[in-house]
Amino acid sequence: MNANEMAVRARIASRQMMALDAHTKEKALNNIAAALLENEPAILAANQTDLERSARDGLAAPLLKRLKFDLAKIQDVVAGINSLIELTEPVGQTLLMTELEPGLDLYRVSSPIGVIGVIFESRPDALVQISTLCLKSSNAVLLKGGSEALETNRILAEIIHGAGVAAGMPDGWLNLLETRADVNTLLEMDQDVDLLIPRGSNEFVRYIMDHTRIPVLGHADGVCHLYLADDAEQQMAIELAVDSKTQYVAVCNAVETILVDRACADSLLLPLAQALSARGVEIFGCEETCRRLGCQPVTDWHTEYLDYKVSLKIVDHLDAAIEHINRFGSGHTESIVTADSQKARQFMLMVDSGNVFWNASTRFSDGFRYGFGAEVGISTSKIHARGPVGVEGLLTYKYKLFGHGQKVSEFAAGEKIFTHRHMDRPAPF
Amino acid sequence: MNANEMAVRARIASRQMMALDAHTKEKALNNIAAALLENEPAILAANQTDLERSARDGLAAPLLKRLKFDLAKIQDVVAGINSLIELTEPVGQTLLMTELEPGLDLYRVSSPIGVIGVIFESRPDALVQISTLCLKSSNAVLLKGGSEALETNRILAEIIHGAGVAAGMPDGWLNLLETRADVNTLLEMDQDVDLLIPRGSNEFVRYIMDHTRIPVLGHADGVCHLYLADDAEQQMAIELAVDSKTQYVAVCNAVETILVDRACADSLLLPLAQALSARGVEIFGCEETCRRLGCQPVTDWHTEYLDYKVSLKIVDHLDAAIEHINRFGSGHTESIVTADSQKARQFMLMVDSGNVFWNASTRFSDGFRYGFGAEVGISTSKIHARGPVGVEGLLTYKYKLFGHGQKVSEFAAGEKIFTHRHMDRPAPF
Repeated sequence: MNANEMAVRARIASRQMMALDAHTKEKALNNIAAALLENEPAILAANQTDLERSARDGLAAPLLKRLKFDLAKIQDVVAGINSLIELTEPVGQTLLMTELEPGLDLYRVSSPIGVIGVIFESRPDALVQISTLCLKSSNAVLLKGGSEALETNRILAEIIHGAGVAAGMPDGWLNLLETRADVNTLLEMDQDVDLLIPRGSNEFVRYIMDHTRIPVLGHADGVCHLYLADDAEQQMAIELAVDSKTQYVAVCNAVETILVDRACADSLLLPLAQALSARGVEIFGCEETCRRLGCQPVTDWHTEYLDYKVSLKIVDHLDAAIEHINRFGSGHTESIVTADSQKARQFMLMVDSGNVFWNASTRFSDGFRYGFGAEVGISTSKIHARGPVGVEGLLTYKYKLFGHGQKVSEFAAGEKIFTHRHMDRPAPF
Repeated sequence: MNANEMAVRARIASRQMMALDAHTKEKALNNIAAALLENEPAILAANQTDLERSARDGLAAPLLKRLKFDLAKIQDVVAGINSLIELTEPVGQTLLMTELEPGLDLYRVSSPIGVIGVIFESRPDALVQISTLCLKSSNAVLLKGGSEALETNRILAEIIHGAGVAAGMPDGWLNLLETRADVNTLLEMDQDVDLLIPRGSNEFVRYIMDHTRIPVLGHADGVCHLYLADDAEQQMAIELAVDSKTQYVAVCNAVETILVDRACADSLLLPLAQALSARGVEIFGCEETCRRLGCQPVTDWHTEYLDYKVSLKIVDHLDAAIEHINRFGSGHTESIVTADSQKARQFMLMVDSGNVFWNASTRFSDGFRYGFGAEVGISTSKIHARGPVGVEGLLTYKYKLFGHGQKVSEFAAGEKIFTHRHMDRPAPF
């Protein structure tokens, strides 16, 4: 079956999934969890094949580590599936109810989007997470994983699809694409794919966005900022800088640029630089920072290092910090350190990012830490979903109107009038 | 000022609008309403110039009617502004609150999107409606109207911008583009424009969607369906067909295809056709309908007539009706006539459209009839906003995290644990 046929099959499955009940989905998720545990030896064998081939091909050690899928990883994804089962049924929730006139009731009801296309990297856990999230939200899914993980992805997709179908999911609710050519086909299937979620490097996400008419959910980069205001308490400022930069450097919510207010630069700049250097962070600075610290100059304030490197800039005041962030940031996550609530208010209102923090590490910007249970990804778009995206990002809504033969001509002629009474009543179905 | 400079000006204004308070916006809307009434003679004179030039240029009578902007129209738009003033402040609403741990509080807060670009047709009322909706939602706006309405749009934009600025809105919160070249420039300004709303013909909206990386809100077409189920009560079926088709034919929520269940075709087809013909509706049919009624065959089931024309098809059962709609419809509005709640349930679940109705005219699919107060447009997209879109379609949200110096390393080390308690508490700011 080629990518085109798979997309059509997913569309057909998605139609049937519109009417899935919560019980069938729960049964399917339980089946999938059980099947993953039962098939542990086969999964590990397939993963071993991938690991050996990738090692021969010279895949770098950190990527080999991400590729590895062992019993602990299986137990992790099964724990994830169990928490998905606990999550309130997301489809069919009444979001708004308005009586247009007595006997003419309008409901806004949450609904699946339809067919989701997900393109992800080497981690095979992503396949399990994404496919079960799509199941929970009644969406059919087309998945394309990294070629290093070919055998692991193949067996995982087979197990998950089969366990779902055994519980009553339609055939074709999950589809695995395997080649790069498949991805290019996918980008052209705007009739059969409703939303694309690319997870990978900036260049890759940007490429996807530039080559499709399908809406794309995701972020291209995370150039996050920490602003240390004139009154920033020194110890908190340094600790949050160290945590935001070094707690885990290879992630989108790690800080890339620290803005130091000129009013506290004399006292703060040197101890801040020392604390960062002590953690192995290389500092790049603005002209003045370079003069004061003798560091390398920043070449581009847009840079996302994803490494033990940070840009440091001295700014004249709060407004200059906000302006720098709105100009060079990527709309991901920015934090201010201050004791002054007026400064925090100004910063959080005027910084145009999905996540704006006061006296907290940028590293908190994450679906699991936010308590969303599962995360589709982090969106830096302002349309549809913004910030860490849970199952809600896989939902849309539809308006359901329940009438008794009402015509618009009756209202146009003034025989009837709209009441527009908002009520707290769930849709009959 | 060229389109590029205007977009940059709008971006700068939008940054300042992020911190606008409700009082300033109310004052601005009041100022605008008063200024429109005060400047009636100048507005009417400008409109007269447009009308005379357009009549000389041979603009069709219905379009001349849409172009006319008289005292009654001014009073209408002022009434619209007054109802916008009454609307609850949409920005800064807390949508979700979660305590991550005591003293680390996460809020999801509604926020303006930023810069909205709107391209609309000849009706100058649209300029007033859209610019005041953008003001209410704290968005800066770039407007491009039809060239027929050049003088009217110019004076309206000047009055509205000036009255807003006098109340404290930033300079450049509203910008009027005037040429086709400006539109092409606009489509390329994805750094400074966050959302495009094109209002016009299908071809035009499709062109916009195909030529920009900026997200587009809108619908390309409205191929709406009415399905008369096997048990449809004859009088209701005919009355809803007549209302859905003829109450106003030139609009997107008018019905274009009526699906008649085979089980009731013998009794229903002829009286239905007669009722439609009596209102001047020309009927196009499927093969069997043509044989029974002697009408013209349908050439394309995707057709949006926007005229006194309708497609008629006999379908074998409910599933066939759903399949036809999902294949040929545009995801706009579909209605079923039946007394059977199980059939209605199936139809409303499985038809993948923004608006699904039971025993009601498709013409109800409209923001004003839904009680949304004001309408940005009707979206057939499933991403961001679907169905009639009110002020909410012009909003996004941001996450605000209020901490006391918390670091992720404390949680990673197990010194602290997440509580993730959901609470009903509004954000401090």
